Amino acid sequence: MLEQLKEEVYRANMELPKRNLVTYTWGNVSGIDRESGYFVIKPSGVDYEELSPEDMVVIDLSGNRIEGKYRPSSDTATHLELYKKYPEIGGVVHTHSPEATAWAQAGRSIPLYGTTHADYFYGEIPCARGLTPEEIDEAYEKNTGLVIIETFEKRRLNPMHTPGILCVNHGPFTWGKDAAEAVHNAVVLEEVAKMAFRTEVINPKVLPAPDCIRDKHFYRKHGENAYYGQN
Amino acid sequence: MLEQLKEEVYRANMELPKRNLVTYTWGNVSGIDRESGYFVIKPSGVDYEELSPEDMVVIDLSGNRIEGKYRPSSDTATHLELYKKYPEIGGVVHTHSPEATAWAQAGRSIPLYGTTHADYFYGEIPCARGLTPEEIDEAYEKNTGLVIIETFEKRRLNPMHTPGILCVNHGPFTWGKDAAEAVHNAVVLEEVAKMAFRTEVINPKVLPAPDCIRDKHFYRKHGENAYYGQN
Amino acid sequence: MLEQLKEEVYRANMELPKRNLVTYTWGNVSGIDRESGYFVIKPSGVDYEELSPEDMVVIDLSGNRIEGKYRPSSDTATHLELYKKYPEIGGVVHTHSPEATAWAQAGRSIPLYGTTHADYFYGEIPCARGLTPEEIDEAYEKNTGLVIIETFEKRRLNPMHTPGILCVNHGPFTWGKDAAEAVHNAVVLEEVAKMAFRTEVINPKVLPAPDCIRDKHFYRKHGENAYYGQN
Amino acid sequence: MLEQLKEEVYRANMELPKRNLVTYTWGNVSGIDRESGYFVIKPSGVDYEELSPEDMVVIDLSGNRIEGKYRPSSDTATHLELYKKYPEIGGVVHTHSPEATAWAQAGRSIPLYGTTHADYFYGEIPCARGLTPEEIDEAYEKNTGLVIIETFEKRRLNPMHTPGILCVNHGPFTWGKDAAEAVHNAVVLEEVAKMAFRTEVINPKVLPAPDCIRDKHFYRKHGENAYYGQN
Repeated sequence: MLEQLKEEVYRANMELPKRNLVTYTWGNVSGIDRESGYFVIKPSGVDYEELSPEDMVVIDLSGNRIEGKYRPSSDTATHLELYKKYPEIGGVVHTHSPEATAWAQAGRSIPLYGTTHADYFYGEIPCARGLTPEEIDEAYEKNTGLVIIETFEKRRLNPMHTPGILCVNHGPFTWGKDAAEAVHNAVVLEEVAKMAFRTEVINPKVLPAPDCIRDKHFYRKHGENAYYGQN
Repeated sequence: MLEQLKEEVYRANMELPKRNLVTYTWGNVSGIDRESGYFVIKPSGVDYEELSPEDMVVIDLSGNRIEGKYRPSSDTATHLELYKKYPEIGGVVHTHSPEATAWAQAGRSIPLYGTTHADYFYGEIPCARGLTPEEIDEAYEKNTGLVIIETFEKRRLNPMHTPGILCVNHGPFTWGKDAAEAVHNAVVLEEVAKMAFRTEVINPKVLPAPDCIRDKHFYRKHGENAYYGQN
Repeated sequence: MLEQLKEEVYRANMELPKRNLVTYTWGNVSGIDRESGYFVIKPSGVDYEELSPEDMVVIDLSGNRIEGKYRPSSDTATHLELYKKYPEIGGVVHTHSPEATAWAQAGRSIPLYGTTHADYFYGEIPCARGLTPEEIDEAYEKNTGLVIIETFEKRRLNPMHTPGILCVNHGPFTWGKDAAEAVHNAVVLEEVAKMAFRTEVINPKVLPAPDCIRDKHFYRKHGENAYYGQN
Repeated sequence: MLEQLKEEVYRANMELPKRNLVTYTWGNVSGIDRESGYFVIKPSGVDYEELSPEDMVVIDLSGNRIEGKYRPSSDTATHLELYKKYPEIGGVVHTHSPEATAWAQAGRSIPLYGTTHADYFYGEIPCARGLTPEEIDEAYEKNTGLVIIETFEKRRLNPMHTPGILCVNHGPFTWGKDAAEAVHNAVVLEEVAKMAFRTEVINPKVLPAPDCIRDKHFYRKHGENAYYGQN
């Protein structure tokens, strides 16, 4: 069942330790098959070294486990909300990568300071508000997904133009058209977070880059006038 | 004698250089067999590259060397005090890992800024007071253990809910139900220390995470209602 | 065609990931054959792992693709302007290496704080002004080259004595007598940027090194009285 | 000639890149044979990957090259002054390791903040004054050695208790009873510099560790009452 997707999601998960985004089991990647409405996700708390494609867990959009011997990632309900809301999303990632997590812990959105950021994120990378004790108590992971959506609605953000967010006191979520792109965006976010940290120390009065730089670089890589790469 | 425990403690020691927690010989791990009351610890000043399981030293809870050709770690008396006081502790680790040691040198407890921390430590990671010249002179390593215990008593901390501490001007000690878990907690502490450093630079006015986040994440992984992982 | 140069430029490109200067495809190296007036550059957006010498693209100094199945780096027009203006330049590099990019994002030239810097750069490493919206709109990459040249003209800098620059909100460009030396200077710039960041945190009132240190170290390695190395 | 010493000095040099203390050729190690009065040093500007024991250059204490096809390290005259002044020194190292160099560029001695430091350096690691233009002009490398000695004389420091120094705007020199120990101390200095940087950011009002900690840890590893290790 969904063998190719499991393989893709497995490989995307294995990129996380390879790219130094996770310590131990602190991360998870999923990918969705929009035809069946099923998504495939890493099992909870299983070591990366012991993972194999067949360990991936299949979940439907009501949150039922359709296949898999393991329990799915404890963050499954967050992934699910994002898939339900945004049909353009094909893969979701959560990590505790240290540079991005530091911004999340600091409760700050990452300002757009340069082209490295603008090549992937059209504007600042938002930091979502914290959950209330009631929201945590009622359905923590589901409400984490809903607060991400709330942030995007309120700020009128396009999730494909801002393919990631910081959850305050927690860490980053990123996404993309498939699991591999979601991981790619997680790597970029970590690098951007690292650079922004240093930028502010080097110049505490620094301002975000002008809009013309943001527009130029984002649309150099995205949209119909893109001219980066071979396609 | 205690061959399996020696093997476990050996492997736990070898995790320290693998996880980049030690330079040269700056760390030691022990594990205890509660039945015999003997614990097994790394020899003092021996290179990790040359260690083997049979080099581990066996010590009783009075501090006598029961077996082993080498002298035990110079920090043995600290491990011993922790084992005597807390029967639930099965393994102890000491390192000079740089991010945690920087907090110890700064004389500050690490505030709980996010879920990475709360997944393992229920509240701030305390920094113990310095020893007096008399305490140092009388029995430095033993008194290091006693001041750790004093800190936990005064702050009414559960050592299994706060499985580590910083000794001011010195560095971290961590522990767990066995040697492997103690090392796991040492890795987590280093990562948490790194994130907290960056968090405060990014937002100098940052406050600790709310209690509801602490409670949610700690109990998601610990206690009878835990639902992280496969058990 | 230009097989040896392609091999050199290929190897210089492969140094970028090896020296940890690039994430994914965020960098490009070129080298020029002054006899033919053709330069060889990395193709746009191709993974380093999949590159081979024959993938390098040959461009003339009017910007025409002379040979190559791929489209050249999107930054080709910047390289071209540098080759046209400065006949002494034989290789050019662009990266988003994090420490140097942080200075570029901060909009600051890197002061000369010590001999590591002075061994390669005779004075501060300048940060070029941002492009105007018109300049971006008209010809972004070409104008990036022109603003680099403008900076060197205004400050009366010798490009072989200051073999690199920061483009504000963007990142570093470096160059040298050939592609390998240009990469060498990119590695040095990253290291110098890292040290300067720490220097200012350790001593916020630090002043640049005195001119006598700059002169001594630069001319110890460059010019007719150089005595570093074997030549 | 001095084959064993060449081998030792070669191995000590190769530790520098292995321990991440050098970029390219930015470091050199020497070791002395006190019987003959000859010391052996790395050649200038030769890649570590291409070094072999027979490339080491033999120098006498008047600075004459006794043997070797290469020119010796450009810092040879600094090593020489240290060997002449301090008969107890058997090996000398110079690097541009980034954390220690940042302190040198900042012009600050590294305060003793904890036991990692005190295990090897009895008190702060001094930063020597800058050379005057005349001193640089007359004999830069020799005067670098003399200003190190001046610093130790003025502060009445024992070079075996403070086996290293920072040269302002330049970088660290370390030494020890042989080349291997000198490299060991260079590694320690880099780690101590890294921790001290973080310590001051975490607590800008931090004070040095009390003398009793310094004394305890230094003499736990050094002198006749040492009890660390197996000897």
